[in-house]
This record gives sequence, structure tokens and C-alpha cells, in this order.
Amino acid sequence: MTGVSVDEAMRRAIELAARGLGTTSPNPVVGCVLLDAAGQVVGEGFHAYAGGPHAEIVALAQAGERARGGTAVVTLEPCDHTGRTGPCSTALINAGVARVVIAVPDPDPVATGGAETLRAAGVRVDVGVRADEAEAGNVAWLTSVRRGRPYVIWKYAATLDGRAAAADGTSMWITSEASRIDVHALRGTVDAVIAGVGTVLADDPRLTARNLRDGSLAIRQPLRVVVDSAGRTPLDARVRDGAARTWIATGKEVGFDPTGRVDLTALLAALHERGIRAALLEGGPRLAGAFLAAGLVDRVVGYVAPRLLGAGPAALVDAGVGTITEAIDLDVTDVTQIGPDLRITAVPRKRES
Amino acid sequence: MTGVSVDEAMRRAIELAARGLGTTSPNPVVGCVLLDAAGQVVGEGFHAYAGGPHAEIVALAQAGERARGGTAVVTLEPCDHTGRTGPCSTALINAGVARVVIAVPDPDPVATGGAETLRAAGVRVDVGVRADEAEAGNVAWLTSVRRGRPYVIWKYAATLDGRAAAADGTSMWITSEASRIDVHALRGTVDAVIAGVGTVLADDPRLTARNLRDGSLAIRQPLRVVVDSAGRTPLDARVRDGAARTWIATGKEVGFDPTGRVDLTALLAALHERGIRAALLEGGPRLAGAFLAAGLVDRVVGYVAPRLLGAGPAALVDAGVGTITEAIDLDVTDVTQIGPDLRITAVPRKRES
Repeated sequence: MTGVSVDEAMRRAIELAARGLGTTSPNPVVGCVLLDAAGQVVGEGFHAYAGGPHAEIVALAQAGERARGGTAVVTLEPCDHTGRTGPCSTALINAGVARVVIAVPDPDPVATGGAETLRAAGVRVDVGVRADEAEAGNVAWLTSVRRGRPYVIWKYAATLDGRAAAADGTSMWITSEASRIDVHALRGTVDAVIAGVGTVLADDPRLTARNLRDGSLAIRQPLRVVVDSAGRTPLDARVRDGAARTWIATGKEVGFDPTGRVDLTALLAALHERGIRAALLEGGPRLAGAFLAAGLVDRVVGYVAPRLLGAGPAALVDAGVGTITEAIDLDVTDVTQIGPDLRITAVPRKRES
Repeated sequence: MTGVSVDEAMRRAIELAARGLGTTSPNPVVGCVLLDAAGQVVGEGFHAYAGGPHAEIVALAQAGERARGGTAVVTLEPCDHTGRTGPCSTALINAGVARVVIAVPDPDPVATGGAETLRAAGVRVDVGVRADEAEAGNVAWLTSVRRGRPYVIWKYAATLDGRAAAADGTSMWITSEASRIDVHALRGTVDAVIAGVGTVLADDPRLTARNLRDGSLAIRQPLRVVVDSAGRTPLDARVRDGAARTWIATGKEVGFDPTGRVDLTALLAALHERGIRAALLEGGPRLAGAFLAAGLVDRVVGYVAPRLLGAGPAALVDAGVGTITEAIDLDVTDVTQIGPDLRITAVPRKRES
């Protein structure tokens, strides 16, 4: 039996890492594949939840003595600090691993230094194998560490002509059940769902991750955040029910921006402080406009229904754009048909400042 | 050498027919493949332009005596009338063809009857081979014959959030050059381009089919139609230049609808009378809304730029929809990336009336 290449092992490690998506916050997703000296896979692991063992530790436990002289292939630089678990760098050295191959360096100032510690102990360290792929798999966490705020996904649902509701305000349902099921799956991958008080007053949404067929709740629920400058969320709003934790983020608590609304940068800092790494911004149009105007959106996911209304509220309002040259440019990264609808995923293009 | 099947021959005939797209109006596109008694291809033809020979005649001329005892495979029922050319039914009989395979029957009351004439002369006639495909290739002409009005394609350009321009009215350019080149190619496939006087006053468009790189005009230009209830098109508007024919369709000439605007049904009837089989409706938003409200749009082609504006005029206004259950439902038939933009093609779903 021939062994697997380091490149193949990294592909497998990235797949393993993805299994942790939605459950590792505030930690990153990490996958690890251990090869023995002959290149045979002798251990695999991924980080499944905060407080649980790191990917390297799981793989080392499986490999046991066979790790000695082998290669650890890991999607993120092994940590060098003692948190809820001991440093992975030390564990790899103690296991006698001869080489560590890393996709992406750890940008977290608290945990970084693993590569250096390993090299100092005589372990060969290579960084950058399948880095783009591994980075994409961890984009929310990496963004959140680098910017000190959660990775924000703005999700909207609209008709082909950009309307979020009809002229009389009716909007149930703009998009198909297939799209709404997809949205609930998306909620299951983030740590918080954010909506404006206007949306709460208009639609009284639950903002939970549910099975739409039987109404049952997902085991893990994102924090529900209502952006509510003046504290207008009704006491009997569904978002206040016991199905998930809720934070009514008022201007008084978070701070006001110059226009008298909740300061969004302060809001995101507070969420980051609470361990929120990925947040789903669900509306309304004006809150989305404020996030976009402030450059605080990292990904746009639009559920576009093939329908026309010709009247009614727009999906996006007041994004700080006055003329065509100021348009917020995006790059489309994916278009998928979801039932009859199109799900368009795009990321804001870097803007010169 | 073995012969080709009738099914393969029809596929080829449909390909041949498509070469006539954009140049055969007011005639349909038609392709013909002639097989000899052994199933060998002995003739091919398509209808290239109105007044030119029909597809069957071209194929028969190529085949000569080899057509005798053979099979004619043709995308549309051979005509039975003497127009600018003699009836194809007679030509096929005179050539001694033993069998005629037809994809789609001719719905035109003037030309129909070919199948009957052929059968009466002892020719075996089969109808319906690859009918859907052949129908799709001829959709504009077939729709126009069946409804007595041109097939109408509504084309719009908008941002992901459905804006056709920014808050200050600037719109050059919402979409990429690649999309604009695609629009000029689309103009080259229709017989008329329709715009409202509001668009003429705002943007002063040429509405010609051009090579955007060097500005040169396509050889064949669609009729430019300005829907202009009160006759406000300026004398020096670009649309009045000598680059193509232009019709300023005023309410006085066409007739008014109850709201005092140009009667669109009368407009389309007048265009049909002029031999227009396919028309491209290019704007503005309110004219598009009126066409959609009247059920006069057969295809929607949206050029959607991955940009956000959050303010500015919508791509579609006043489509006669007041509440969500009245939304105009479409079926998406194609999504293609054109440069950075998405081109979304959709057809209105049949509505219960």
C-alpha cells in the first residue's frame, strides 16, 4: 500500500475541519491528518466544539506510537498556549512528530507561536499547503480574529425586481419553502442572528433555526440580536420566547451613532466580546443599508424569487450611495438554484479608501 | 456508410434553422435535411431571409434526382401557398420524395395545409419529431402567429438590489461592457426595439445594434419604436438619426388606453401589421410595468450587476400588482455569467384568469 501525499492529506484535513462548522465558536474549525514515516494515514481528527479536544490531540490519540517520525498535516497553525486544553505544539513534539505541514498561520495573537516552538524543537515546519481552501473553510473565524468583530453575512429575500414585499406590505412568502429551509440551515452555521426592531414590529419573527416541516428547533440555536435604538421590542415579541437566547441591543446599552441609532461598530465589538464569530444579518432594509454603508458586511446571500412586483419596499435602503460611481461592488462567488429561486452569494470587493 | 436516423436529421435541421434567426422576419426560421432512400444525407437547407428560397427548395436543389424515394426532414410544416415563392408541398411531391417528417405544424392559416396536400399525393407524413426543440427555436415567430402580435422580450439592467440607476439618476454604467455587448447582440435578433419617451428624454439612447468596440452599425437594424403618448420626442433625439428606421408611436396615431397613454395592444397589433415578429422592450420601468400588467411580455432577460445602491429608481414600476398573491410569477430558464454580471432569462408562468 502506498502512502498518501501531503497535498491529499491536507484536502482530507480540510474536509474534516468543515465538520466543526457552526459548533466550534469562538474557536476556529481545524482538521488534522497524521501520516507515519511511510506516509500511511495513522490518525485523523477535527475540532468539534469549544472546550473539546483540538484536532491534533484527537489525531495523536488515534495514532499513538505510530506518530513517531511521522508528519502532522493540519489546516491551522497548532496552538502554542494553554487554554481549556494544553498547547498542541508541545503535544506534537512529545509524540515525536518529525514534520508539521500547516495550511494557514494562526492570526490570533494569543494562540500563535506554534510553528516557532515546533521549529525550535527540531521539527520541520511547512506553511501554505492548500492555504486558500483552508482559509475559505475558516473564513468567518479568520475574519473575526483579524478585524476584532464577527464575520457578517447579510441575507435578504427579494423578487427579481428587488422588492422585499408587495405594495400593501405583504411578504409571506416572497421566496419558496425550499429557500426558507435553506435559510434555517444557514442560521445553524452562525453564532448570532441580527434583525432590526422594525422587522420585529412588522413580522414578529422567531429568528430561530428550525425544521420547517415539523417546527422542531435545531439543538444549537444562534443568539438572537435585535438592534433596537429606543427599546421598542414588545414584551410579548416571539423573539423574546424561551427557544433561544436573545439580546435586545438598545442604544442606551451599546451606544449611539451620530444619527441617534445603535452604533454598529460598538454592537459588533460587544458581540465579539461575547464570543460571536459569525453573524447573520437578516434585515430590515435600512439596517442592512447601515451595515453596508459602514463596510461591515463580509458576505451577501440573496434569495431571489423569479417573480415581479413593480411596487413595494426595496430589499435595501440607504446604503450611503448617492451616485453610480459610489456603488458597492461585489464579486459573485456562487449562484445556486434553490427550488424555483436563485441563491446568489457574493462578497464585497475591496474598496480603495 | 450507414445512413443517419430521422431523429439525427431533425437535430441537424433545427441547427440549420437557427442560422436564419434575426433575418427571416416576417417569416419563420426553417431548416431541412433531405435523406435518400438509403438514409444518406443528400441535401440541406435553411430559410435565410424573407423573399429568399425556403429551406426545402434549397435542400431539393442540392439533392436533385437523389431526392426521389427519399425523406425530407423539416422543422416546420412545408407551406402550401404561393407567396413570394411557390408552395413547398408541390415541390416535394414533384421531386418524388416518399416521406416528409415534420417537427411542428404550421399555425399560420395562410400557409397551413402542406401536410394534407402531401398526404393526398401519397407521401407519408409524420409530425412531432423533436417538436419541443424546434418550437423553442421558432418561439418568437410561433408566438406572433398564434397571438397576432409580436413576441415581446423585456430586457432590463439593474443592480442586485433592483435599482436601474443611482439616487442622483446616474446609470452609466450599471452593468459591464460585456453585458452591453450582449444586449447589442440581442438587438440583432429582433425586428424592433421599443422604448418609452421617458427613456429617450432621460438617456437619449441610439437604440441601434452596434459593435461597441468601434461603434460600427450592424448590417441589419431593428425598427426603433418610441412609445410617446403626447409626441414629446425631441427633433434632435439620437433615436431620430439616420442609422435605422424609427417610429414615434404617439397616442394620436395608435390610440389611447383609458389612462390616456398609448394603447399597448393596438401598438403591438400595428407592429405585427408591419411584419414585426419579435420585439425587444428596453424601458423605462413604467412602460415595462404596463406591458407586464397587460400580460404582453413573453420573456424577461435581466442583466443583473453584482452591485448594491440602496437608493435610486427601480427597474420595474406599476406592474398592476397590489399584494403578494398577485405577484407575476416567472420560470427561470437560464442563468449565465456575462463578465461580472448575471444574465437571468425567465418566462412568465401561465396565469389562471
